[in-house]
Amino acid sequence: MSAKNLTLLTDFYELTMMQGYFEKENTEVVIFDMFFRVNPDNAGYSVMAGLEQVIDYIKNLNFTYEDIDYFRKLGIFSNDFLDYLSGFHFSGSIYAIPEGTPIFPKEPLLKVIAPIMEAQLVETAILNILNHQCLIATKTSRVVFAAQGDGIMEFGLRRAQGPDAGLYGARAAMIGGCVGTSNVLAGELFDVPVLGTHAHSWIMSFPDEYTAFKAYADLYPNACTLLVDTYDSLHSGIPNAIRVFREMKEAGIELKNYGIRLDSGDLAYLSKKARKMLDEAGFPDAKIAASNDLDEYLIHDLKMQGAAINSWGVGTHLITSKNCPAFGGVYKLAAIQDENGTFVPKIKISENTEKITNPGNKTIYRVYDKETGKMRADLICFADETFDENETLVLFDPIDTWKHTKLKSGTYTLRELLVPVFIDGKCVYESPSVMEIASYCKEQKETLWDETKRLFYPHKVHVDLSRKLYDVKSQLLKDMSMKEEELESKGEE
Amino acid sequence: MSAKNLTLLTDFYELTMMQGYFEKENTEVVIFDMFFRVNPDNAGYSVMAGLEQVIDYIKNLNFTYEDIDYFRKLGIFSNDFLDYLSGFHFSGSIYAIPEGTPIFPKEPLLKVIAPIMEAQLVETAILNILNHQCLIATKTSRVVFAAQGDGIMEFGLRRAQGPDAGLYGARAAMIGGCVGTSNVLAGELFDVPVLGTHAHSWIMSFPDEYTAFKAYADLYPNACTLLVDTYDSLHSGIPNAIRVFREMKEAGIELKNYGIRLDSGDLAYLSKKARKMLDEAGFPDAKIAASNDLDEYLIHDLKMQGAAINSWGVGTHLITSKNCPAFGGVYKLAAIQDENGTFVPKIKISENTEKITNPGNKTIYRVYDKETGKMRADLICFADETFDENETLVLFDPIDTWKHTKLKSGTYTLRELLVPVFIDGKCVYESPSVMEIASYCKEQKETLWDETKRLFYPHKVHVDLSRKLYDVKSQLLKDMSMKEEELESKGEE
Repeated sequence: MSAKNLTLLTDFYELTMMQGYFEKENTEVVIFDMFFRVNPDNAGYSVMAGLEQVIDYIKNLNFTYEDIDYFRKLGIFSNDFLDYLSGFHFSGSIYAIPEGTPIFPKEPLLKVIAPIMEAQLVETAILNILNHQCLIATKTSRVVFAAQGDGIMEFGLRRAQGPDAGLYGARAAMIGGCVGTSNVLAGELFDVPVLGTHAHSWIMSFPDEYTAFKAYADLYPNACTLLVDTYDSLHSGIPNAIRVFREMKEAGIELKNYGIRLDSGDLAYLSKKARKMLDEAGFPDAKIAASNDLDEYLIHDLKMQGAAINSWGVGTHLITSKNCPAFGGVYKLAAIQDENGTFVPKIKISENTEKITNPGNKTIYRVYDKETGKMRADLICFADETFDENETLVLFDPIDTWKHTKLKSGTYTLRELLVPVFIDGKCVYESPSVMEIASYCKEQKETLWDETKRLFYPHKVHVDLSRKLYDVKSQLLKDMSMKEEELESKGEE
Repeated sequence: MSAKNLTLLTDFYELTMMQGYFEKENTEVVIFDMFFRVNPDNAGYSVMAGLEQVIDYIKNLNFTYEDIDYFRKLGIFSNDFLDYLSGFHFSGSIYAIPEGTPIFPKEPLLKVIAPIMEAQLVETAILNILNHQCLIATKTSRVVFAAQGDGIMEFGLRRAQGPDAGLYGARAAMIGGCVGTSNVLAGELFDVPVLGTHAHSWIMSFPDEYTAFKAYADLYPNACTLLVDTYDSLHSGIPNAIRVFREMKEAGIELKNYGIRLDSGDLAYLSKKARKMLDEAGFPDAKIAASNDLDEYLIHDLKMQGAAINSWGVGTHLITSKNCPAFGGVYKLAAIQDENGTFVPKIKISENTEKITNPGNKTIYRVYDKETGKMRADLICFADETFDENETLVLFDPIDTWKHTKLKSGTYTLRELLVPVFIDGKCVYESPSVMEIASYCKEQKETLWDETKRLFYPHKVHVDLSRKLYDVKSQLLKDMSMKEEELESKGEE
């Protein structure tokens, strides 16, 4: 899989623009920020994921002879430019927020500092990879939150948007908090637990349900979850499962990690009935797993209604982030280096205030409350700004600027979120394993209040700008608005 | 890309079931049908896509040493079973509906006839691949229909759910009717047109918009679409574009394939204003392209409001099928071969009538009206049934059985939809090129009435069962219901 060359996984306009910069001999170093504007599905936070795949992509950037031949056939690229491409490698620097970190709108998740041609080429794949994995890690976090400690199993491969969506979706789901995945390839490649038992077809391939259950229990006595809804959960499936459990007990098999799976019907009603039947039969530790079009809202409601389910298989809704299947990350020019090596901030305006970018070479500090360890806010500032934890920190809302918060010295701690990933073309970051990222993610989510994790109308976490960044941004907006007035007066001539 | 081994792209339970069949020495040949139950987003039809990738997957099925090692480490598979896996290849037969064909709920899109272990293994990847590409080809067909003949450009790569979703999504989008894609890798691999011009960052990297436009026009005089909304479309972008077009004309450049792209603001209002400005400046043939969160509904409405747009770039909504991001295809056991080589029909019941499967070894005939060439219905029947176009054909609704239609001899033609793809493990089907499939798809959509293609509450196409299939299904349901009564009377004991 790692051999897959994604160099051409880019929008055509990246190449036409590159040739333009090449012809103009534009070798300026620029800064692009990858960020998003809104948490998916009105969530209170999102989760960073996909960095390891971005790193693989950057490392393997390389146009093959076939690629160059293909470009030549298109008839719009010059030989000089194609020569340049054939020797292409990424020479720039990349900073990013580590995977598993809770992230918020507007803050740069990843920052590319590179000659403009290089920075432009990598836009599409970086967006593709991060948009996908952040989306699924975020969705999973919501589902996991709704399950209040029960295990969530990722079961979505068959409904994922193609092989990679299944594979990297499973990766992101593990980061977001799933206990395992049905996806065997993900299990092999990312060293994460694989889960699953049997399908309806298993039952149907035997003369009757009891025989099918019995055969399964003989094979897998230590992981015996029986799917009970092929014919009739209450009148056939659960009684047959109980019969098999009883026979296992009688045969002296120690029953552990066993139970049933419900896959249709009303899961609240059926699980409570099933619990009662299993308890009365002497199997109070038999697990009840459920699947069938689950998402965080349905799990939340089933929990409210006292569903006796311990384990949830979530497929389609999780792997496609069904009610919000796109993350909306963008990649915007933030600065251009001048002859003196200074990064001149650039801003992209928009009629929509929310869409105006934050200019300059930036970083982010996460502000924690020293006593509780909980997150207070994120602070976006210029990369060369420094803050002293022994001084008062003033946070203010960049839209409603009259909203101030003063954090007294000694009451807060700061952590820089962006870490170096590539420096001058060399990778300087080693990705943790997926299970390490998952454990870090769980830990980091503990720094968020439950109010932020709530499914409906969660509390909004503050993402503030430093005074210096705010002032530069305001000045650029003023300059822009003056230019606009000039334009309008021209238009009236 | 083709080297990518997807053998492990399967659900874990396929393997635990396989081992079960292996231990039980179950070598029965079975039939599984892949079908779907509902058209995405209440559409009137769907579009078949993804078969070529299914073929690649089946051809390359092969467990590597690493895979077997990985399984060994999991500690639940026997050495005998792992030996079997290490020599695994697919020996069965597959029939499928060719890509680009309009398809309807309930009919088998793909039928696997194979020993149960093999048929079970391939379930997940077949569903993953077909669910994804059918979804995007279907969505694209709707978008293309809404655009009433204008070109739709696929621009979604950056928002796709991972690299494959972008790549194969672009493939499916071309099948569904896009005129081109921004995805360069798709262009190279599938030999389809790639499209695109420049981004806002191009404009921002120049001292001013005019200079940026001028530079672009110098480079690409024959494909000069200028993005006009970086600063202010009406007061800056369009006037600067007109200035550049004028200078090109004055320089003696023959203007063809040129125009502007709008990427924000109200596209109906702005496009009409832009049209007027371009016309008045003497550029009535300048094209107006639009992008920005478009889908079939918005395009439909913009058309209704007289938007002067000739070309549409559709991204997120198309590549994720945003308002319905999963296709919902399933893979169900339909028959098991007995000792005599006869396929014994199997049925999967459900409380929901719509979810009951069609049993047996089946095929599908598409019924066309001989005079108009339009499609009348699809007829699902047993694979060994024959129909004579010189006899009256009676179609009846399998749910509301009193609804009959008699087609007189000579007034209809029949075409079998399922074609052989693999016979006894050997591939017997050669996939057409993507552009050939796209052209076949366009042709086939002509056989549907516009009433079926309508975005809102489309006319439902009939998918009927042959009398013989209907009778067998009814009998199986009766048998099941008798069994259920037995169970219930037991439950009352």
